[in-house]
Amino acid sequence: MLVGDPDSFRSEFPVLERLAYLNAGTEGPLPRRAAQAASERIEAELHGGRAGRAYAESIRELAGRLREAYARVLGCEPVEVALTGSTTDGVNTVLSGLRWSAGDQVLTSDEEHPGVLAPLGRLRRLEGVTVRVAPFERLADAVDGRTRLVACSHVSWVSGRVVDAAALASTGVPVLLDGAQGVGAVPVDVRALGCAFYAGSGQKWLCGPEGSGALFVAAERLEELSVPWPGYGSLADPSDPLESGPAQGAARLDHGFPPGVRSAWALASLAVLEEAGLDWVHERAASLAERLARQLEERGLRVAPRGRSTLVSWEPARGADADEEVARLREAGLVVRSIPSRGLIRASVGAWTSPEELGRLAAAAAAR
Amino acid sequence: MLVGDPDSFRSEFPVLERLAYLNAGTEGPLPRRAAQAASERIEAELHGGRAGRAYAESIRELAGRLREAYARVLGCEPVEVALTGSTTDGVNTVLSGLRWSAGDQVLTSDEEHPGVLAPLGRLRRLEGVTVRVAPFERLADAVDGRTRLVACSHVSWVSGRVVDAAALASTGVPVLLDGAQGVGAVPVDVRALGCAFYAGSGQKWLCGPEGSGALFVAAERLEELSVPWPGYGSLADPSDPLESGPAQGAARLDHGFPPGVRSAWALASLAVLEEAGLDWVHERAASLAERLARQLEERGLRVAPRGRSTLVSWEPARGADADEEVARLREAGLVVRSIPSRGLIRASVGAWTSPEELGRLAAAAAAR
Repeated sequence: MLVGDPDSFRSEFPVLERLAYLNAGTEGPLPRRAAQAASERIEAELHGGRAGRAYAESIRELAGRLREAYARVLGCEPVEVALTGSTTDGVNTVLSGLRWSAGDQVLTSDEEHPGVLAPLGRLRRLEGVTVRVAPFERLADAVDGRTRLVACSHVSWVSGRVVDAAALASTGVPVLLDGAQGVGAVPVDVRALGCAFYAGSGQKWLCGPEGSGALFVAAERLEELSVPWPGYGSLADPSDPLESGPAQGAARLDHGFPPGVRSAWALASLAVLEEAGLDWVHERAASLAERLARQLEERGLRVAPRGRSTLVSWEPARGADADEEVARLREAGLVVRSIPSRGLIRASVGAWTSPEELGRLAAAAAAR
Repeated sequence: MLVGDPDSFRSEFPVLERLAYLNAGTEGPLPRRAAQAASERIEAELHGGRAGRAYAESIRELAGRLREAYARVLGCEPVEVALTGSTTDGVNTVLSGLRWSAGDQVLTSDEEHPGVLAPLGRLRRLEGVTVRVAPFERLADAVDGRTRLVACSHVSWVSGRVVDAAALASTGVPVLLDGAQGVGAVPVDVRALGCAFYAGSGQKWLCGPEGSGALFVAAERLEELSVPWPGYGSLADPSDPLESGPAQGAARLDHGFPPGVRSAWALASLAVLEEAGLDWVHERAASLAERLARQLEERGLRVAPRGRSTLVSWEPARGADADEEVARLREAGLVVRSIPSRGLIRASVGAWTSPEELGRLAAAAAAR
């Protein structure tokens, strides 16, 4: 890859030869190298078997490297990273790991995904916790003396707005960020964000396999969490599982044994992004997304208020149905999605996106 | 494949060309067709992208077929199957989904895996549940009026003994079976076993991918479980996640969205076993395992008391260290494992195993 060359970066993703693939917010495009790494690992398992000391060591080594790679993109230490299967896993880990008392309050926003809201619904039903919903853009103002946790998106999946993390941090209440539209899309530095917990997806902006993800737990918060989903890997002493304390670091919260194929694939995807330079990836995607928003507005479409992110949501032209509009755009080779119940179309713009694709999308969106 | 022909079945598993692979109890050998199915799915994702209605439909369709396939091997309805990432996931789902009161008692055995004991340890610490341990072979006798659940292995990972499920069922206390060494290895009919819950692994005797598994929840027990790890897929109405009730059937307990690659791989592995005939697979593996046990005993080795299963555990000759013995056998191309803290060597015998391999293993094990 020629670093800093958009065409060279773009050529890593074969799907872009066929489609204007603008849906990394659901699942990212796959780099060729990631598919190759996954298939090579499968071949090795096929011919070499999946047991023995060397095999177990390869699993551990891949998991360790993946933990390090996620730590780099999150801006934390590897010991603060748990390997999960999804953002939802991370949210469940935190909400099930904290100890609750009836009457505790969790504050969340009006632009949250079911991956946050479904676990909050469980907390409300089973633990008697109060869930209060406030507008995404004024969340910090809604924190009060009863708020034990703020659980909200880093970047809204609905609008692409970015949460005011500094204002939340200044409240002193611990914050759990849903980073499904954050990590890999926009710069993430969990220290600067001041959050206690950050749950991210591997298959979206990090272009990894389905069923991958990472959870950041600030080192000083780890002991506040019990291990909600224990297994062999979460124990300090697997030979005495009933009595054993937890394993070291956030690895105790890993969601099952990290499969070797998943690790190899996720690592290869991350390597493509890191080779291009994460700063460049973030900057280019944000600029392109801004360009798309401008182009849509210039054509008279109403773009939902957004932040410096990679998501652009707008109302279909002339009151069209959002799902029909998504299907119509798909016919033209433009892959976007609707946001159910909001009547919006959402495009996910990556550093792999070309300006030409955006022009085509804006024209098609207005051409109804 | 020539059905009923051992050599033809064996030739589906390339690792057997290089190794006497006798460790399906950790992870099974991979069939060539499974690796191919996984790689083909990855190629489709690479070139076609991973979004849109048709893609989402393909994920659902694969998951539905996998649920049906697991239901066939478990002897239940698809609506009673949750797709998990491991046996441990299934155990955690049941133990976290049931509602506990301090003083409730769970009965377990003295031959359980950390995948059962680690979740039980959590229950004891956080819910004040009493965990009582009784000998595996006399578990039903230990049930008393305070026992709310029996959680134990179908087949002991230590010895290969098979639990007396009929005796357990006759106590009337609900039973959660850890089927890690059961499903795919020995005949499983969850109705005949009379269990309420059965947690199995996909990557062991079913030769599927790491991070796969299934949980059976008897239809009449489903409402006793809350959804302990909710997400988009567990909701009846994802548009109202805070208020929504659970989705239909055991799918509400699925562990995350079922990844397409995982489903395609698991299905292809199951197809190889079903094509050979599960009855034949079970019968041949059990006969071969019995033969190995006999050969070891004939050579003066002490085989741990076992049942009609696919595991054979024995004490290393002349007091040797079990891990050193495993390493020595590995040098001879014989892949077995030790059982930590019991000082045993364990061989996993499959329908894919050849009599010649067993003769070689028995000779090598005695030849120290």
